[in-house]
Amino acid sequence: MSKELYLGIDIGGTKIKMAVVTSKGSIKEEMVSDTDINAKPLNIVKSVIKTVSKFKNYSKIKNIGVEIAGDVSYDTGIVRFSPNLHKWKKVPLKEMFEKITGKKTYIGNDANTASMGAFWLDTKEKASNLICITLGTGLGGGLIFNKKLYRGASGTAGEIGHISIDPYGQKCKCGNNGCIETFIGAKYLSKHAIEYLKESKSSVIDELTGKNHSLITPQLLFEAAVAGDEVAKDIWKIMGEKLGIFLSNIINFANPDTIVICGGIIQAGKYFMGAASNEIKKRAFELATKSCKILISKYTHKLGVVGAAMLLKR
Amino acid sequence: MSKELYLGIDIGGTKIKMAVVTSKGSIKEEMVSDTDINAKPLNIVKSVIKTVSKFKNYSKIKNIGVEIAGDVSYDTGIVRFSPNLHKWKKVPLKEMFEKITGKKTYIGNDANTASMGAFWLDTKEKASNLICITLGTGLGGGLIFNKKLYRGASGTAGEIGHISIDPYGQKCKCGNNGCIETFIGAKYLSKHAIEYLKESKSSVIDELTGKNHSLITPQLLFEAAVAGDEVAKDIWKIMGEKLGIFLSNIINFANPDTIVICGGIIQAGKYFMGAASNEIKKRAFELATKSCKILISKYTHKLGVVGAAMLLKR
Repeated sequence: MSKELYLGIDIGGTKIKMAVVTSKGSIKEEMVSDTDINAKPLNIVKSVIKTVSKFKNYSKIKNIGVEIAGDVSYDTGIVRFSPNLHKWKKVPLKEMFEKITGKKTYIGNDANTASMGAFWLDTKEKASNLICITLGTGLGGGLIFNKKLYRGASGTAGEIGHISIDPYGQKCKCGNNGCIETFIGAKYLSKHAIEYLKESKSSVIDELTGKNHSLITPQLLFEAAVAGDEVAKDIWKIMGEKLGIFLSNIINFANPDTIVICGGIIQAGKYFMGAASNEIKKRAFELATKSCKILISKYTHKLGVVGAAMLLKR
Repeated sequence: MSKELYLGIDIGGTKIKMAVVTSKGSIKEEMVSDTDINAKPLNIVKSVIKTVSKFKNYSKIKNIGVEIAGDVSYDTGIVRFSPNLHKWKKVPLKEMFEKITGKKTYIGNDANTASMGAFWLDTKEKASNLICITLGTGLGGGLIFNKKLYRGASGTAGEIGHISIDPYGQKCKCGNNGCIETFIGAKYLSKHAIEYLKESKSSVIDELTGKNHSLITPQLLFEAAVAGDEVAKDIWKIMGEKLGIFLSNIINFANPDTIVICGGIIQAGKYFMGAASNEIKKRAFELATKSCKILISKYTHKLGVVGAAMLLKR
């Protein structure tokens, strides 16, 4: 077993996660700092390098991998735009890291690193064809085919949030209609809950929101379900049905051996995964369904930083 | 350039196509014979071998590739079942060919060979990520990722006919609802046309069918469109819209550099591809759309036999 060590850095809108990772994807050391979104990118990079140089194993690190959400050039390592960091425009992030540290650096976006992280952490590199689905504000995806990151012709492969399951349905911000994101993305989930509550009453949700339903979030719907609220459970069930319809399409198309679901909403998995599985049983090919493990990631908060560290194996 | 030659054999329900193919996918010699669907599989194999041994270049052939529609084991080369050849049950086709000819033989199904054929003939091996769509009785698909055939975990990858674009729509024979096949497969296309004609009158279609609309086929709808019939043109346009909705999903998910459309229905391409393109422009990501060439195959009747010959490069 190789004793190489890699450094992963996940630059988020509120936190920066840093970890020393083995060649098998295990974290040896880790640290977290706050993101100063007003700082200049170069100052953030310098501050991160100062922090990581305190890792005991820093001198043994062979490569660096950095994740940043947004429009990132995979080849040049330039961050063209990041939704979380408004000052980051055309930032040569790879070059900055390489110049200061002298270590080869790989840059990837959140979809790339989540799927790499899921491959290494959730499947211990056993999956061959893996689809990683991030359930969060939107719905992101990353694809691993033949054990390698698959990015498509222009790097947008895996934009699974914008697969439509209702072509004449609600307009999505992408321009299409009825994208799966308009059914199960966090914002839309809250919106659907508000609609649902026009027809059904929930004293638990009323209490949690002070009857102001515009305060509904997936977190609140989760808490209501935990408290036994049937309305909240129904809302999660409907979400699970839509997820299952969508996963059936994915299974029939790509016949993956593994689907890993991660992201902020997975804590509510027990309230929606049953309904999702029922739809898959009804809708997807039996052989393809049997060949596909669907995992809720056990490492959702580590996928980015570990996936970043593993970008060299992409 | 390698001077190797390969033999491709496409065993269909009515015809058997045979060709000697170069290592670049060009046909050097070809022959066609009728399929005797009542003959024993071994007798068909012997008869095919007798025929191909008459090729001038037969002695120079390095490998054999055989296509047969149905449930074919890619690894063992056993034909478990073929919809066109009812006597073919658990036929060790690879073994039969290898025993008699002494040449290494590869077996693939129609989806495998169509995509291999499209890669070699329509893109001259230039595509990296290609999706081949066969518009026929059903809707078949084959995937080439990173220049290699992608088959998924259990060999069913590319079952694109069973991607649903209307989850609560018409029941499909696969068990799902609103599969794209229920909109644009030949059988359904005729059915939709019959429905459409309840609301609209077409003297051309009435004449071609003798007012018996149960005789409507895609071929007849094509002829009516060629004759200038506006109703037939509308039916093709609606078909094109559904195809475009579906292709938008494929483009957003897989970000292919090439989509090749082949099969019996493509002759009507000029009546449906415009509508398909309009939907893609409205619905798919701009960058992914710009990166994706959509080709109508120029070799639809050769894809199987050439793709079979090229199976060794899968």
